[in-house]
Amino acid sequence: MNGAEALVQTLAASGVDVCFANPGTTELHVVAALDDIGTIRGVLGLFEGAVTGAADGYARMTGRPAAALLHLGPGLANGLANLHNARRAFTPVVVVVGEHATDHQHYDAPLQSDIAALAGTVEGWIRRVGSAADVGPAAAEAVAAAMGPPGRVATMIVPADASWYDGAEAAPVIPPTTARDVATQTIEEIAGVLRSSEPTALLIGGAATHGEALRHAGRIAGAAGARLLCETFPARLERGAGLPVAERLAYLPEQVREQLAGTRHLILAGARAPVSFFGYPEQSGDLVPAGCTVHELAGTGTDVAAALGALSERHAAPHLGGAPGSARGDAPTDELTLQSLGLALAALLPEGAIVSDEAITASAELAAATETAPPHDWLSLTGGAIGQGIPVATGAAVACPDRPVVSLQADGSAVYTISALWTQAREGLDVTTVLLGNRSYKILAMEVGHLGLGEPGRLTQDMLGLSRPDLDFVALARGFGVPGERPGTVEEFNAAFSRALAEPGPHLIDVRL
Amino acid sequence: MNGAEALVQTLAASGVDVCFANPGTTELHVVAALDDIGTIRGVLGLFEGAVTGAADGYARMTGRPAAALLHLGPGLANGLANLHNARRAFTPVVVVVGEHATDHQHYDAPLQSDIAALAGTVEGWIRRVGSAADVGPAAAEAVAAAMGPPGRVATMIVPADASWYDGAEAAPVIPPTTARDVATQTIEEIAGVLRSSEPTALLIGGAATHGEALRHAGRIAGAAGARLLCETFPARLERGAGLPVAERLAYLPEQVREQLAGTRHLILAGARAPVSFFGYPEQSGDLVPAGCTVHELAGTGTDVAAALGALSERHAAPHLGGAPGSARGDAPTDELTLQSLGLALAALLPEGAIVSDEAITASAELAAATETAPPHDWLSLTGGAIGQGIPVATGAAVACPDRPVVSLQADGSAVYTISALWTQAREGLDVTTVLLGNRSYKILAMEVGHLGLGEPGRLTQDMLGLSRPDLDFVALARGFGVPGERPGTVEEFNAAFSRALAEPGPHLIDVRL
Repeated sequence: MNGAEALVQTLAASGVDVCFANPGTTELHVVAALDDIGTIRGVLGLFEGAVTGAADGYARMTGRPAAALLHLGPGLANGLANLHNARRAFTPVVVVVGEHATDHQHYDAPLQSDIAALAGTVEGWIRRVGSAADVGPAAAEAVAAAMGPPGRVATMIVPADASWYDGAEAAPVIPPTTARDVATQTIEEIAGVLRSSEPTALLIGGAATHGEALRHAGRIAGAAGARLLCETFPARLERGAGLPVAERLAYLPEQVREQLAGTRHLILAGARAPVSFFGYPEQSGDLVPAGCTVHELAGTGTDVAAALGALSERHAAPHLGGAPGSARGDAPTDELTLQSLGLALAALLPEGAIVSDEAITASAELAAATETAPPHDWLSLTGGAIGQGIPVATGAAVACPDRPVVSLQADGSAVYTISALWTQAREGLDVTTVLLGNRSYKILAMEVGHLGLGEPGRLTQDMLGLSRPDLDFVALARGFGVPGERPGTVEEFNAAFSRALAEPGPHLIDVRL
Repeated sequence: MNGAEALVQTLAASGVDVCFANPGTTELHVVAALDDIGTIRGVLGLFEGAVTGAADGYARMTGRPAAALLHLGPGLANGLANLHNARRAFTPVVVVVGEHATDHQHYDAPLQSDIAALAGTVEGWIRRVGSAADVGPAAAEAVAAAMGPPGRVATMIVPADASWYDGAEAAPVIPPTTARDVATQTIEEIAGVLRSSEPTALLIGGAATHGEALRHAGRIAGAAGARLLCETFPARLERGAGLPVAERLAYLPEQVREQLAGTRHLILAGARAPVSFFGYPEQSGDLVPAGCTVHELAGTGTDVAAALGALSERHAAPHLGGAPGSARGDAPTDELTLQSLGLALAALLPEGAIVSDEAITASAELAAATETAPPHDWLSLTGGAIGQGIPVATGAAVACPDRPVVSLQADGSAVYTISALWTQAREGLDVTTVLLGNRSYKILAMEVGHLGLGEPGRLTQDMLGLSRPDLDFVALARGFGVPGERPGTVEEFNAAFSRALAEPGPHLIDVRL
């Protein structure tokens, strides 16, 4: 078989069953191999950021990597922003980037560039394949590297001739390394901290924000009377009625300082000690309060679920400390505002929904409103590189065809990768995009004040404003083959949202706030 | 003054009068300085590829750099594909990328990444600014570096604290280095080649494809009976009635081999010896025919216009050898096909038009058809990174507000940076986008055959096809605030094109081929 066939056979044997792709000439043998072999589903994205973001969303929900097939250096460059987010989410992704044929590279043809340097910025695993015979083993290693705890982006750079020449073989699957166990002594020490009567917070992140780990964390916090906190931007937070309520750390540093004020012990489970998202003049970025001791229960690459399990054996309440399984409120009938939208989502968010949250300045309000909605998953913008929301929703919908996906999407950041709507349409994905239009980069307007830059002048307003002209997201959605509507009242929103959930395929609801 | 003010003052003094921008928090002091000082026009792009491509188009037409203001590593990553094209066009661009404040970088906050490694892949000039006092001098050097022949991307990485702290000053302007003179001996030798009776071709590229250099080249070729050839993807080719006809080298290697067959001497003026765009199995990428000697008149960084001038003093025809200033044909009345569209453009393209060509598989036909249209500039996709066309048209229109811009845009590549249409709408730019819809990545379908992959299977067709659903570019344009229409006949196209040219502001014409 040729190298491309060995690639596809090996990836499929290693558990990769979806390839999000935006291929070019140097990847056509891989496309042909996907076609011939037929075990991996090919999903086309019309821009590489849609491809890599979808691979991120897919793996957040399955725990297994998808492949992301990209064309040369510029294709990888276009996909980097969402690989940056995947890196911050510790998501396993196998990136396959084509390269010019080996004996073509010295010509410095127009599309030649330094692909390895680009891939290096994602700080994952990288392998430049030498020949067709190398492809299979490299693919097996790539999957293992991507899966190896805590999950990372693994990039294979595959010259065209390594794809097209024969002499390749599918390689045996390589089991990923397992997460390291946390030392018993560490668990005992932290159990001791929890038994103290001092103000203590358990801060969860990474793999501790869902599944059994989250439930252990809830029981531990409940037994100890400790606060249960969650990192600001969890990759996948399970939440809703009956589930532990983990209070997310805020975005602005002064808000985090207020949240943490008085905390004497901060226990980290899969999370890092909190730092400010941006630096500000004459402010420290370290948000751990003075007098607070940080205890790391489980750091990167350790088995945080097992550590929380062991800790809960020593010190856990019998109950989850979960959010009340409240009777749902009625859908609101007020004016359509961020607040009434939150109430509407609280009333209508279906059980088992997957929420892709790139709501930016609207995020906190909508998250607070849906805290007691039926259980759902909440996927955050992990790395701050905007343009993640629609692609992640797309990948999550491919991963979980039986679950409704709700994409809470700010207008400014929607534009970056909006063509992912087309992939939703082509694949018939059940994604409901709630487009939150405030016609500005509102977070920047907030930061202008925060940086003490005073009243914004005309050019600053122009740089932060999305009006002149207003974006028409219903038209944009239609252009990509997704039906959309623009409710004028919250009743109309409720009807549109319910209809979108009931009908198969993607929908967009343009909410002007 | 603070560093941001020194940046703006120095850039303005150095001749930068436009800043294309997609700023974030770390660039807000620069935005405030642009606002306060008021000498540089700020133009917002809704995606970084729109920003960098516009900066490329602007400088192709003015010969001076614009600034491109980008947000941290992910912002630069999103702008890299079009910086790659700018690099291949030898376009001067000053990229200003914000970075986290110096004392914030060690926290590895979510948006932290290796900005210098990303910038390095563009192979231009890079400076990481250390402090506010460094900003002015670095800005002066950046402009000089960008302008220094043959033109390049100069990237300044500016930590937020270097922008916000005082202690900076505007720096004196640094004159760019001048192009090196070509040795008289080289010119004499090439004059000797031209006097030989052997089949000779003069291949122009870079700065030789417009202005006096082009005219010298036409006279030289005319006098010597040499063929005048042009590199495949010129950054800016002046062409049309009365101007020298430079036959562009084709895209596919076998076509170039046919074009060059029998050539004994190939003289390079601002161009490189031709190589294949991609490698193919068992084919050399070197397209210079056996038995052909390559003579470099003027390489990178030399004064190609002066060299052609000196050569034309020794060996030139009195006339330009230009395309006939033919009476224009009537606008066609046939079915709307690529051929009739070419005739329509030939009949209607206005004098002084700037054509941004990302027509991909439609490019050769439309270029051939417009060869004798009134004089115009033709801007090609220089680096093969698709998503250049709409942004370059945008920047060219900012550069030349009195000239009509015609954007010949393939459908597949349009999607990558389509939000540049919004910038056209906001700035009221006279750009007419002719959207060429064949509902596929047609060039890849061609390459499938070329690579001997046989009849494409179902998945391959899916990966190369843009239908299911069709993209509605009239809706997309409307979404970005640009009026659009979809003519059904060539008469309707003629009317729509004439109307679009006559009315101020951008328009899109969706041509389904």
